[in-house]
Amino acid sequence: MDILKESRDIIEAINKAMENYLYEKEPSHLYNAVKHLPLAGGKRLRPLVAYLACEALDGDGMKTIPFGVALEFIHTFTLIHDDIMDRDEMRRGMPAVHKEYGENAAILAGDTLFAKAFEAVSMMKNDAVVKRLTKNLSIMAKEICEGQALDVEFEGVEYIDEPMWFEMIEKKTARMFEHAAMGGAIVANASEKQIETMRKYGLNLGMAFQIWDDCLDVIGKDIGKPVGSDIREGKKTLMYLHSYKIDKEALKDYGKEASVDKIIEIFEKNGSIEYAKNIAYEHSKKAIDAIKEIKDSKAKHMLIELAKFAVEREK
Amino acid sequence: MDILKESRDIIEAINKAMENYLYEKEPSHLYNAVKHLPLAGGKRLRPLVAYLACEALDGDGMKTIPFGVALEFIHTFTLIHDDIMDRDEMRRGMPAVHKEYGENAAILAGDTLFAKAFEAVSMMKNDAVVKRLTKNLSIMAKEICEGQALDVEFEGVEYIDEPMWFEMIEKKTARMFEHAAMGGAIVANASEKQIETMRKYGLNLGMAFQIWDDCLDVIGKDIGKPVGSDIREGKKTLMYLHSYKIDKEALKDYGKEASVDKIIEIFEKNGSIEYAKNIAYEHSKKAIDAIKEIKDSKAKHMLIELAKFAVEREK
Repeated sequence: MDILKESRDIIEAINKAMENYLYEKEPSHLYNAVKHLPLAGGKRLRPLVAYLACEALDGDGMKTIPFGVALEFIHTFTLIHDDIMDRDEMRRGMPAVHKEYGENAAILAGDTLFAKAFEAVSMMKNDAVVKRLTKNLSIMAKEICEGQALDVEFEGVEYIDEPMWFEMIEKKTARMFEHAAMGGAIVANASEKQIETMRKYGLNLGMAFQIWDDCLDVIGKDIGKPVGSDIREGKKTLMYLHSYKIDKEALKDYGKEASVDKIIEIFEKNGSIEYAKNIAYEHSKKAIDAIKEIKDSKAKHMLIELAKFAVEREK
Repeated sequence: MDILKESRDIIEAINKAMENYLYEKEPSHLYNAVKHLPLAGGKRLRPLVAYLACEALDGDGMKTIPFGVALEFIHTFTLIHDDIMDRDEMRRGMPAVHKEYGENAAILAGDTLFAKAFEAVSMMKNDAVVKRLTKNLSIMAKEICEGQALDVEFEGVEYIDEPMWFEMIEKKTARMFEHAAMGGAIVANASEKQIETMRKYGLNLGMAFQIWDDCLDVIGKDIGKPVGSDIREGKKTLMYLHSYKIDKEALKDYGKEASVDKIIEIFEKNGSIEYAKNIAYEHSKKAIDAIKEIKDSKAKHMLIELAKFAVEREK
């Protein structure tokens, strides 16, 4: 199954809804900045997970769309603000919002998208669902901020313990997949046990995605940024932490432009790429394992394919 | 009646709740930045308005507290981000968050407070109230962003029409008072007519406050920043717009340090201060007029006093 092909109609519905929710036009400078990133494409994985989790639990996936839009707005809002903080100039093959519209507009565009995320959720019909999703999304967004704060903090240090690193990516990335899957279950009016099942699925899927993403920086093709970007920027990845424990002297040029090839060789020699890949595989397996008790359906099958895709994709 | 003295117990309850809602500690650099401004005092006018509006409509004001905390978090979040955009270095007599903790932490602190605003609202008991307040707050926050975008835009131009200027302060400032009063009515389970009554009260109160604030920059004492700060920064106030129409040549040094005294003289000569003060008075009267049909109570009396205070205070 080609999961991306198979989910094309769902993605189309999500894209359409995102456009509809971004109906504002004035002030034009603000709303051009607001729309720049969310309407520039993207895999829409988080809304897709919410949709499929809902369907797999006998819910109507279409009812998750406003929630999915909210997830995507929060996701893009954090990217816009992160790019300001990290001084990243490109995103999805385009200039970052702060490069194109200036930093002030980028701060405001992020804030506006954040507001619109809650607007989208508040449009859903069921009051109890709105309340629960509002609570979950607000706590999730807070944790994303905490994860980003840790990430910024880690830039300034030479080494961090793995548990700290896992906490960071769990908050910054995996939590959102966790809430996507849980939210789908909540919209499906599922039992607390089923919601917990989906929570485990989403969390592990998110971890698998992020760790594989870090691996792709070294082994990937055409991922929208040059190979070794993380190495060049001195980003602490699981591969770096693994190699550091084996031979920290060899990593003293980590973060320097000229050292990319050499660092990749060191990662290979130390088995650090294999180490990270294996952890990604484990999370993918755990995600699949989490939903094994759920009855068979096309949506369940697609969730399984998504967990495989997370650690098989080349970009 | 000394409205600030009279509302001391309510403010105390709001301050206590704000502390309780800011329970997080780690990452410490982030949460020190998050707490810097909200726990540094402030008049808490928005939560106070929500509380009094609820009580004036026979509701239990204490039930508005989580909503009031949300308003205050959104208010401080916008101040933190605005100070980055406006390069303002001081706020409430302290270094601005971005001066004290750096710009990255300030962006994240604002985002975190924004998230926590919705967390606070989602803690309220009544599902339908949570849904309505979430919707209102998200649309309000979006409009605050629009107002700030207009404000930034206006910095770059010599003149703007009054209707545009009113749109800007309505969105950036008055809307929040409008939603504070409406929210109080919603928590009181009031009728749509009563909610509309409170909307008018809040909107006019907010306009009166903001316009009087601009006047205080010229006529005030000890307002936490030097007299004439707006003039020095070239901020477009109602006084500026009024004088511009009379004699724009005389304002060519607007925005320059040395011209403050001269500009104040021009404002006086043109009657621009009186003009702005009168518009503030009108809004204060409209606010009081809006609630005249509501039955007498201490809370109603306090709302009236608040509308008078808006245009009588010296700081």
